[in-house]
Amino acid sequence: MKKITYRFSHSSTDYYFDHRVADLRSIVDKKNAVIITDEHVFGLHHSRFRGWNIIVLKAGEEYKIQATVDSIVEQLIALGADRDTVLIGVGGGVVTDLTGYVASIYMRGLRFGFLPASLLAAVDASIGGKNGIDVDVYKNMVGTIRQPSFILHDAGFLDTLPPEEWKNGFAEIIKHAAILDARMFKELEENSISSYQKNTAAISALIKRNVLLKTKLVQQDEFEKGNRKLLNFGHTLGHALENQYELSHGQAISIGMGFACFLSKKKNGFSDGKRVVALLEQYGLPAYASFDKRKVFEVLKMDKKRVRREVSYVLLERIGKAVVHPVGLTEVKKILDQF
Amino acid sequence: MKKITYRFSHSSTDYYFDHRVADLRSIVDKKNAVIITDEHVFGLHHSRFRGWNIIVLKAGEEYKIQATVDSIVEQLIALGADRDTVLIGVGGGVVTDLTGYVASIYMRGLRFGFLPASLLAAVDASIGGKNGIDVDVYKNMVGTIRQPSFILHDAGFLDTLPPEEWKNGFAEIIKHAAILDARMFKELEENSISSYQKNTAAISALIKRNVLLKTKLVQQDEFEKGNRKLLNFGHTLGHALENQYELSHGQAISIGMGFACFLSKKKNGFSDGKRVVALLEQYGLPAYASFDKRKVFEVLKMDKKRVRREVSYVLLERIGKAVVHPVGLTEVKKILDQF
Repeated sequence: MKKITYRFSHSSTDYYFDHRVADLRSIVDKKNAVIITDEHVFGLHHSRFRGWNIIVLKAGEEYKIQATVDSIVEQLIALGADRDTVLIGVGGGVVTDLTGYVASIYMRGLRFGFLPASLLAAVDASIGGKNGIDVDVYKNMVGTIRQPSFILHDAGFLDTLPPEEWKNGFAEIIKHAAILDARMFKELEENSISSYQKNTAAISALIKRNVLLKTKLVQQDEFEKGNRKLLNFGHTLGHALENQYELSHGQAISIGMGFACFLSKKKNGFSDGKRVVALLEQYGLPAYASFDKRKVFEVLKMDKKRVRREVSYVLLERIGKAVVHPVGLTEVKKILDQF
Repeated sequence: MKKITYRFSHSSTDYYFDHRVADLRSIVDKKNAVIITDEHVFGLHHSRFRGWNIIVLKAGEEYKIQATVDSIVEQLIALGADRDTVLIGVGGGVVTDLTGYVASIYMRGLRFGFLPASLLAAVDASIGGKNGIDVDVYKNMVGTIRQPSFILHDAGFLDTLPPEEWKNGFAEIIKHAAILDARMFKELEENSISSYQKNTAAISALIKRNVLLKTKLVQQDEFEKGNRKLLNFGHTLGHALENQYELSHGQAISIGMGFACFLSKKKNGFSDGKRVVALLEQYGLPAYASFDKRKVFEVLKMDKKRVRREVSYVLLERIGKAVVHPVGLTEVKKILDQF
């Protein structure tokens, strides 16, 4: 059992690696806590949360919307939640995003923590304090940046993870490797989802490595003025695709990474696009899809990394080294048409 | 023209006293700005905002709700607002609360500033970064604490202020005097709304004195762990009354102050309740009303200053000196029944 505390600008987060759900009792006072989870996680794991206050949400990205926030707020009022209440998000990225957001606005802010129940939530969504909801087709259009008080990792959740969710998690892991860590990229090339599934030590180490990679970047630039933007590799086109087509987050950002490699070649002379595409495919992810480019561009235009007529696009210089490059919307459109 | 910059925990706010709406052009870039105001202020002052992007809301506390936030977000998307956009709230407390809240959550945070157009907004709502919306009968149940980048005071707005709004403003001014400033309390006793209305220098000085009183308290305790709570004098019962009965904010907190004096006598031996009640009445404010005590107590129970079965009640020791005193809910109910 390891606990490591990381400082951010205004607060700190305790990371509990290799812990168990049962350890939660020693971290928060059960009487003051409300767990937020979804029907899917609740169905599989409810016996582990017996005796806790629980709010159970419908599962799926389509519920990451204001109506769900309204419903959580109503339930918190009914439970008599006050400023000493701690919210605990147990689930994937949708649950952690909703929990962090509600905790940021209910009574102007409660403490909160996460138990990531998916690979994607463990290596990405639970870290860094970004939260929020979708507005219409626009991903995370509304939200805040506020750090959780704690994140507890229980590898037991991985045992019940469906195959699609393994792919979703690996999409973000491949992203981290492509932008930050050439050695991890090589490790991934030498492995596969099934090899990691068979090797608990290897997947635990991989999760921890990804958690620390992202944490370091967030510590340097919590409010995304600089290097934190690198984490958006694949996400500009990815976000524009995700809510218009019925794609998982992993599929959407994989196609986004495919396009970002194409753009990196045009703008930066990046020559290893084929390796990125091959690795995505090795982990069951698509690096290309056909879509209505005009319609998708209309949504891409509203990307949060846009300032007026330019998008801060994340491009690769080489594997393990990304840069943020302002690209004019007209040029993005032109290259998108060639993709 | 005076500009004073005040530092808060994570940011700073520029205060522009004795300025004009026209000075706004030198503070923000018109192209990147969106003004948020209400129909009432827009009807009276629209000529002063010609050429600016404007979102006009329906006027009134009943619109300080999520549906209005949804509508502002939609309009910002339609205007193509990005992370460089600055929101400017021009209006009373409802407009400043909504503007600050939307600016805190749109794309995870935009810069924002205020032009308070009412006395209450000038001396209270525009200061200190608290924002939010009501949920059902619960006041400010959802919101954040985030400081504006600037506050610009233009005394011209007072020329069109209806009599009710003068009373609303003076309710908060009397509150400041009662909890913090015995000399200002005396000045108020020697004056009246009409004497201030006739004396521009006196009302300008009074506004500035109140702005600085509140600012100092917020600087000491931005996130309301201690002394900032004093500003809630009259607000515990006041908030419980406000959305259940058709009371203005000033009327509601005046009745709240009347009750807090009564409670202060019982708990603290405070003996000057009559002076507070007399001053409230001198400024056209009620210090008592008959109401359904059971129903009001049910809402009071959810006060944000409650932690489990106790409310942090703000009581007076003497005029100009308040303290925070935890009072059990059962005792509050008992004394409320005697009120």
